[in-house]
Amino acid sequence: MHQRTGLPVVGMVGAGQLARMTHQAAISLGQSLRVLAAAPDESAALVAADVVLGDHTSYPDLAGFAAGCDVVTFDHEHVPGEHLRALAAAGHAVHPGPDALRYAQDKQQMRERLGALGLPVPAWTAVRGLDDLVTFAEKVGWPVMAKAVRGGYDGRGVWPVATPEQAAGLLDTGTPLIAEQLVPLRRELAAVVARSPFGQGASWPVVQTVQRDGICVEVLAPAPGLAPELAVEAEQLALTIAAELGVVGVLAVELFETDTGLLINELAMRPHNSGHWTIEGSRTSQFEQHLRAVLDYPLGSTGLTAPAVAMANVLGGPAGGPGLDERVHHLSARWPALKVHLYGKAPRPGRKLGHVTALGADPAAVRADAVAAAAYLSGGELV
Amino acid sequence: MHQRTGLPVVGMVGAGQLARMTHQAAISLGQSLRVLAAAPDESAALVAADVVLGDHTSYPDLAGFAAGCDVVTFDHEHVPGEHLRALAAAGHAVHPGPDALRYAQDKQQMRERLGALGLPVPAWTAVRGLDDLVTFAEKVGWPVMAKAVRGGYDGRGVWPVATPEQAAGLLDTGTPLIAEQLVPLRRELAAVVARSPFGQGASWPVVQTVQRDGICVEVLAPAPGLAPELAVEAEQLALTIAAELGVVGVLAVELFETDTGLLINELAMRPHNSGHWTIEGSRTSQFEQHLRAVLDYPLGSTGLTAPAVAMANVLGGPAGGPGLDERVHHLSARWPALKVHLYGKAPRPGRKLGHVTALGADPAAVRADAVAAAAYLSGGELV
Repeated sequence: MHQRTGLPVVGMVGAGQLARMTHQAAISLGQSLRVLAAAPDESAALVAADVVLGDHTSYPDLAGFAAGCDVVTFDHEHVPGEHLRALAAAGHAVHPGPDALRYAQDKQQMRERLGALGLPVPAWTAVRGLDDLVTFAEKVGWPVMAKAVRGGYDGRGVWPVATPEQAAGLLDTGTPLIAEQLVPLRRELAAVVARSPFGQGASWPVVQTVQRDGICVEVLAPAPGLAPELAVEAEQLALTIAAELGVVGVLAVELFETDTGLLINELAMRPHNSGHWTIEGSRTSQFEQHLRAVLDYPLGSTGLTAPAVAMANVLGGPAGGPGLDERVHHLSARWPALKVHLYGKAPRPGRKLGHVTALGADPAAVRADAVAAAAYLSGGELV
Repeated sequence: MHQRTGLPVVGMVGAGQLARMTHQAAISLGQSLRVLAAAPDESAALVAADVVLGDHTSYPDLAGFAAGCDVVTFDHEHVPGEHLRALAAAGHAVHPGPDALRYAQDKQQMRERLGALGLPVPAWTAVRGLDDLVTFAEKVGWPVMAKAVRGGYDGRGVWPVATPEQAAGLLDTGTPLIAEQLVPLRRELAAVVARSPFGQGASWPVVQTVQRDGICVEVLAPAPGLAPELAVEAEQLALTIAAELGVVGVLAVELFETDTGLLINELAMRPHNSGHWTIEGSRTSQFEQHLRAVLDYPLGSTGLTAPAVAMANVLGGPAGGPGLDERVHHLSARWPALKVHLYGKAPRPGRKLGHVTALGADPAAVRADAVAAAAYLSGGELV
């Protein structure tokens, strides 16, 4: 508790853009997010008052950070599970807890658990050696997707494998892998929900996500043209997973829409790129909802504020061209109703530097605006 | 300029709730507001990374603060004009500038200037001595309103004066005064606009404000039942004042609606309580717009996000009852779509601790929700 206001102190491990935007939400709730940052120039550390420098893989650093926090939560999934269990054993509230978070940390455990729950997942196999992968691929058809069991994100840790020779080369790196069928998909969707320790669940409308090189570049809310029964199924899948796995906080479930129905791709137990549109597009943003959930406040309304919302990520473009300040200036003139979010990061090609959100009545128009504005911020040229 | 991002550094003198909410807006624009705080536990200092401790009446403190800022702006009007002129002379961009800000600092200069512009103001008089006040009151009728020329806000510095004896007593305090007719008003309105150095102006819809003991307690947007021609007149008045006085940033014009038309009450050249509803209720909040304006970015859309928006201030209530955290908890359950803003201040009776905003289709319903929720946060009881 903050001594003067009587309001809680939430600590977030990690100081990237998710922590940065969570801090904005914390301010409204009378709080100030405490962040554990690896360096003082990380995205959230640049804007938060309560910054602790430390290493999220060091238990002493984590324990020092947790002291004085009412709840510890996460901007990423990379904290070792044994440290999380030790924090919880020491009496700290850790949300999501280690027994939930391991399913976001370990793809093999996630696939096993979702399968045991009878939920729809792509055909997959554990890979103890080359034989496992080749046998699986000969059954489902080459190529297959090999995925690192731990540590992958934003397209990292995922490799298409077309031949036994490629598989052997990948296995030689020693990275623990699983293999999955390459799913013939119509498109990707995401169901984002939140769950509190009390057990309350809340779901935003299912969105369509568009990836490029494995990185989310567009999110369309609600998913255009999604059959109502699939929307209900996706929301129920996500709420079921949140409840069965004991997730506390925001849970994002990445989904494949196929000709035969939905398949669960990935889980993230934190605010997620597919929920950035909620800052302006929903009555409660995913960042505020995550805080409400980990504090066991009643969850906020997930109602939409506009019929159609589109988010596009701003990725670092080639060097040169007008500076970012000049780009924001021109963007403001061209799209006065567009909302810009920049993360305070130094530009680097392909890096997520920010996002933009457009809201309106016509899904195609808001998508076109968001994509064009993000491309302009990225590249400095109107495309 | 921030060296790494190439984005500007805005410095705000003062670290109250206006700076706190401006910092939230700055984060989205890739910035981090620099605040000049008198103490480390001020509202904005609790949440901002870039806090300079100092005295806004000390020129060395101001000059040290301004070094490295691209623009200096204000959370209050209390910086001495000679310091502002010295900062500008030293090459700092100061917005609003001293030649504009003096009309928000000095009610006599404001009344003289608005009168010279032919704009509608209440009958008023300069008060050099008792005779001036008594002669004026005998002309317009007792009681009259005496106002401190400088330094008043939130009902401070305003006194109804019913007799020559009361006037003499007030004059004995030595406070420089003006006197104004007690206007028979229907209600109070506010026109909030922004203006950039380039000269672009943008206006939000005119709102109704409700005061209690001189403190704004409710804002209804747009002002319910306001005649369209009065709405246009009020917006034009505010844009005219912004242009004629050379205001840069947000300008709030407090107005009286009377049976014979509009009269200008007060001016504020900064984000203002009557614009807090714009955080969720307008596509561009007054805080983001203030930053855009002082940076000479093109201004953002002032479109509404809902047909009706109501804001109610949370004032400190009597001691005792449930703590603030518990109150937020219950409020979240009762009003899941309501937006809460708490300023991180220690509770004290009558102090502005925060505000709540309700949005919807029905003006009466959103007003009832906002008022009830604010009263609950204030007093800890549902009324």
